[in-house]
Amino acid sequence: MKAIVVKPHQPGMEVKDVNIEEKVGKGQVLVKTLYTGVCGTDRGIVGNKLSFTRPQEGWSELILGHEAFGQVKEVGEGVKELRKGDYVVPVVRRGCGVCLNCKIGKQDFCETGNFVEAGIRGKNGFMREEFVDDEIYLVKVPEAIKDIAVLTEPLSNVVKAIEEVMHIQQRMVWNCEDGAYDCRNAYVVGTGPIGTFFSLLLRTYGFNVYMLNRRDPSPAEEYVSTRIEAEFVNTTKGVDHLPKADIIVDTSGFPSAFVPLMHKMNKNSILVLFGTQTGDKVQIDADLVTFMVENNIAVVGSVNANKWHFKSAVNYLTMWKEKYGDLLNRMITTVVTPENAKEILENKPKGEIKSVIKW
Amino acid sequence: MKAIVVKPHQPGMEVKDVNIEEKVGKGQVLVKTLYTGVCGTDRGIVGNKLSFTRPQEGWSELILGHEAFGQVKEVGEGVKELRKGDYVVPVVRRGCGVCLNCKIGKQDFCETGNFVEAGIRGKNGFMREEFVDDEIYLVKVPEAIKDIAVLTEPLSNVVKAIEEVMHIQQRMVWNCEDGAYDCRNAYVVGTGPIGTFFSLLLRTYGFNVYMLNRRDPSPAEEYVSTRIEAEFVNTTKGVDHLPKADIIVDTSGFPSAFVPLMHKMNKNSILVLFGTQTGDKVQIDADLVTFMVENNIAVVGSVNANKWHFKSAVNYLTMWKEKYGDLLNRMITTVVTPENAKEILENKPKGEIKSVIKW
Amino acid sequence: MKAIVVKPHQPGMEVKDVNIEEKVGKGQVLVKTLYTGVCGTDRGIVGNKLSFTRPQEGWSELILGHEAFGQVKEVGEGVKELRKGDYVVPVVRRGCGVCLNCKIGKQDFCETGNFVEAGIRGKNGFMREEFVDDEIYLVKVPEAIKDIAVLTEPLSNVVKAIEEVMHIQQRMVWNCEDGAYDCRNAYVVGTGPIGTFFSLLLRTYGFNVYMLNRRDPSPAEEYVSTRIEAEFVNTTKGVDHLPKADIIVDTSGFPSAFVPLMHKMNKNSILVLFGTQTGDKVQIDADLVTFMVENNIAVVGSVNANKWHFKSAVNYLTMWKEKYGDLLNRMITTVVTPENAKEILENKPKGEIKSVIKW
Amino acid sequence: MKAIVVKPHQPGMEVKDVNIEEKVGKGQVLVKTLYTGVCGTDRGIVGNKLSFTRPQEGWSELILGHEAFGQVKEVGEGVKELRKGDYVVPVVRRGCGVCLNCKIGKQDFCETGNFVEAGIRGKNGFMREEFVDDEIYLVKVPEAIKDIAVLTEPLSNVVKAIEEVMHIQQRMVWNCEDGAYDCRNAYVVGTGPIGTFFSLLLRTYGFNVYMLNRRDPSPAEEYVSTRIEAEFVNTTKGVDHLPKADIIVDTSGFPSAFVPLMHKMNKNSILVLFGTQTGDKVQIDADLVTFMVENNIAVVGSVNANKWHFKSAVNYLTMWKEKYGDLLNRMITTVVTPENAKEILENKPKGEIKSVIKW
Repeated sequence: MKAIVVKPHQPGMEVKDVNIEEKVGKGQVLVKTLYTGVCGTDRGIVGNKLSFTRPQEGWSELILGHEAFGQVKEVGEGVKELRKGDYVVPVVRRGCGVCLNCKIGKQDFCETGNFVEAGIRGKNGFMREEFVDDEIYLVKVPEAIKDIAVLTEPLSNVVKAIEEVMHIQQRMVWNCEDGAYDCRNAYVVGTGPIGTFFSLLLRTYGFNVYMLNRRDPSPAEEYVSTRIEAEFVNTTKGVDHLPKADIIVDTSGFPSAFVPLMHKMNKNSILVLFGTQTGDKVQIDADLVTFMVENNIAVVGSVNANKWHFKSAVNYLTMWKEKYGDLLNRMITTVVTPENAKEILENKPKGEIKSVIKW
Repeated sequence: MKAIVVKPHQPGMEVKDVNIEEKVGKGQVLVKTLYTGVCGTDRGIVGNKLSFTRPQEGWSELILGHEAFGQVKEVGEGVKELRKGDYVVPVVRRGCGVCLNCKIGKQDFCETGNFVEAGIRGKNGFMREEFVDDEIYLVKVPEAIKDIAVLTEPLSNVVKAIEEVMHIQQRMVWNCEDGAYDCRNAYVVGTGPIGTFFSLLLRTYGFNVYMLNRRDPSPAEEYVSTRIEAEFVNTTKGVDHLPKADIIVDTSGFPSAFVPLMHKMNKNSILVLFGTQTGDKVQIDADLVTFMVENNIAVVGSVNANKWHFKSAVNYLTMWKEKYGDLLNRMITTVVTPENAKEILENKPKGEIKSVIKW
Repeated sequence: MKAIVVKPHQPGMEVKDVNIEEKVGKGQVLVKTLYTGVCGTDRGIVGNKLSFTRPQEGWSELILGHEAFGQVKEVGEGVKELRKGDYVVPVVRRGCGVCLNCKIGKQDFCETGNFVEAGIRGKNGFMREEFVDDEIYLVKVPEAIKDIAVLTEPLSNVVKAIEEVMHIQQRMVWNCEDGAYDCRNAYVVGTGPIGTFFSLLLRTYGFNVYMLNRRDPSPAEEYVSTRIEAEFVNTTKGVDHLPKADIIVDTSGFPSAFVPLMHKMNKNSILVLFGTQTGDKVQIDADLVTFMVENNIAVVGSVNANKWHFKSAVNYLTMWKEKYGDLLNRMITTVVTPENAKEILENKPKGEIKSVIKW
Repeated sequence: MKAIVVKPHQPGMEVKDVNIEEKVGKGQVLVKTLYTGVCGTDRGIVGNKLSFTRPQEGWSELILGHEAFGQVKEVGEGVKELRKGDYVVPVVRRGCGVCLNCKIGKQDFCETGNFVEAGIRGKNGFMREEFVDDEIYLVKVPEAIKDIAVLTEPLSNVVKAIEEVMHIQQRMVWNCEDGAYDCRNAYVVGTGPIGTFFSLLLRTYGFNVYMLNRRDPSPAEEYVSTRIEAEFVNTTKGVDHLPKADIIVDTSGFPSAFVPLMHKMNKNSILVLFGTQTGDKVQIDADLVTFMVENNIAVVGSVNANKWHFKSAVNYLTMWKEKYGDLLNRMITTVVTPENAKEILENKPKGEIKSVIKW
């Protein structure tokens, strides 16, 4: 079948026929791929910038693709819930089977590091016409959101991060006087798909959201921020007018982007680190540490998501589609065929929020 | 009565008679001060290095002292539990009465900043022969630990920090296979009284504890680390041999002390910021941020303690006295009279773990 | 304006003009009522069966109605989020202002009992053409669900109960091997609107849901259970074939309905008490207590909901509308005018799931 | 060696020589038994009243004893912490290895039921001169409490129950205005060793404790209740004078003992079921269910304890010994030799709180 493959640790990618013999075993289903999304990790692998990528055992090449959406074509013996025709999204990371978190379905907190991730490390991905997977790693998706369900995977990571935040912040009373979060302010640094999802999710919790970038908004960003009643802030024009932040989410990975904002953090607030980068540096001093101590400030780095977060992500997409109409469709700014995937895998299209491949 | 007073924002201190007319009102008791402890904050006030100190409303001077232990001399009307002769430790911070955390007894998470702290800001402290206080702010202490109960206040802050850690780390499974924490490693940076308490408390939880300093241990530190089965580590000789840290506690306040240790942090680990300093700087880069993201690393700044933590601290002191004998007595390295307090308030005695004033 | 009023502790109700002078004060808005729902509590008040009902201070009559949905007509000074034209649902219970839970927006856990509830006790309700309310007690609703938003209030109570369950069950690992709840079984006793909402919500969490009643399903129930992939169980035909229950929710209030099911409870399971009744009795014995002890079984009675639960309920309704189409519309089995409200307030229409009044 | 053995499902017991060849394997230690405690379960096995008891695989008899305290005699290869001479208490239950709770060290919440319990079911117990055990199941005990450490096991179960209570009650704000629990009232039904431990532990949390029995206190009970500042209540004289209960702990197992107290439960309160009995019956009605619903009342059955609870129990014993002196020694009302164990295993000594065998 047709697939998009890379040779780990060599730049470049190829659309080609691969010969995979996958039998639908016990508890497994065959999924026809409908859409796969493209993100910075995919481009990092294609550009040979990610040291941790590696092929599946016994393979020299890696089939790319971890953001996927498909439809069940065939159901194996012993499958409990899924039926032919059901729409599904696969979970990316598969646990090590050894550490306690992996043993109870929290492989996003794998402690050994011996997990595999489809399309990234140790396991073929979903950029191919079809794939066989265990039912246990597939999340059912309502037909109503089949046009946007390819967004599930990136959103799942955001859901996990915010779930952690809400847990951590129960170290004290963080809700407002009315029991909700309408009095709380969030800065989201970076306005790509991840920044947009953080903004959407925090708005859903009730936070006043400020979407921060070092420039004015693109028309798509303008639309999104207006529609969800968030404020887009061009930080080069200053942030002094903003109220203190109860949460800052960094999706940029640049310490030079978020460290200068930290003096705006409110007492008991939290900084979420989500972006990963290289090459940027910034100086911190003892006064910043003292500030964090005296104000009970927390920081949390968050990566990946487990099946529960995928399920929640599907629920949020469904809810937002009803509430916001085509807002999420507008986030999908480019759709290409597998044959044309090279153009979006090697370069980021101008004005992109999310680019996807239609299979 | 005799008291130790400072003029906020002027260096120096004075032992003198103050004329305080305190009546034992409803729900209040009169406490005869037995011991008060001295810490860096007291010396900071005396040395005019702390900008936030201020006298009680209507006063030009401030009576110093926030680490105290005393005995009930007189009981006011409506007092519920306390009786004449009971030993007590007073809580330091009194809430703003406005924010939600202060309303439910969590003034250590006061959000307005409009709290007062006895002996520090806005309220006279306990370095005086006796004081009147509300029963609600007094924690009863068993007679058995009357010789060490002056350590309650510093320990209470440590209890609060570790309580937060244990809450935050429930974001995943952090315990070991046997349900306890014996497989976990803790680095404690700084070996003063706070570092010692963190080490004691983490050992009590079962952690393997490494007490880190930039020098070899003093005899007292040698004794303590051996007695509690922790390992004293002179970091100038390298830390490569240490196992990865599941928790790092910084009690130094110097980013140059703890940032270089962060590459030793295990997946899902946590860094506790407790020390406050000025003048130290260090560079952090995007790789460190990426490391924190990909390993789900958390950081928490922690300050102060509420009554619950004081009560827990009393329980820990009681338990440790039974278990470790005179270990805690040995932490009190200097005892002076009020008349001689100047020497320990203006200078740190050599080999000090904790200096106290006996009233 | 037109309103539906009762004289507490006298049977009957009246649709009549009431003369209310409500000014839109600071932080308040004027809401035009669009729909009000009717439940057992309303009928209990009309039938003079609820001892706790009482009029608002200064009134001899009580305006009925606690399940409401309306549209903002006028916005007072100092209102932050709401705009004219916004759709809203009001929270029912207003806290005592004294106990700690009410102080932090958790009036559903009011400890003094000195709360008021609109349309039930101490506060006029929403069965009138318009009402003034504080913004803080109004939850904004997306226009997309304006046809079903009257269901928010009953659902909010269900959301609160399940939120409690999910909290309580974190006393151990309750999720399945894959991190979700698809391996867990729920019995929901009673198939009215509340039972239906519990079934919907538990299905959303992934539970296998069994909807239990003492009879075969009505066509509406048949439709609902099929649509959400739950199994309707006529308990008069036996429950031996059901798998063990991880959660049993009783919405009936009859101990004779749920106690005989308790032997089917799995280890670590939980029983939710939600229904309120009188006149039913059942015998329990020491063996049942022993069974609960040895299997770590929990029980929780749950009542009311706070603003956070109302907000969540709005999100669930929005999501379910996208996912299930007109399923929720079908739950509204009767719509009458205020003039004809008597017929649904004095008697339960045949085949009713939810009856509402259109204003 | 000498051991106390039973033939499961036959009444009676025997002190005799057993021929056990236990080698100290990897990660194991040999423990010399110092004390074993006797409780209702032991007497139930000896009296052939417990259906679930069974011998270890390959055995026809069962060595009795699950409450033990001993000293390490020999240390196997790969043992990490324990040294020869260390004092230890063994954990009773060993997990099934299959369910998620057992996989993470929470075998007290085993879901399959396929655990074994030393001296009770499927595993030889500790009523013998020495035993080999895995280090992972042994909890180190400070020498200071070697005279009372045999109380660890019964206390561990109480610690687990209260840990659950404190978790469950975080469904709302349960602490008092000062952040502690001094405003809360606890009824403990039953004044045996378990009731006494609940009373001690709840007092330590700050609760006002009422120790309830159907008779006046024995001298030992009088001493204990006075010493810990709890009130002993003879319920046959009425309970109307007691303040409302925030927690009721039943250690009796008789529903006729605790159900009649439930009308005294405060809003948001919790009932802990700990006792197991047979043969007692009581009627409950819909009004009680309604009361539990409208007041958010929870119930939790609690059984067993894991290693973490054993460690906490050791800490509490240590702390209480320092605080209360010989209070805990006085709880050990009878000490016999193995040869005389029959008298305390077949009959409960008059005035017993805890009977133990000295090896």
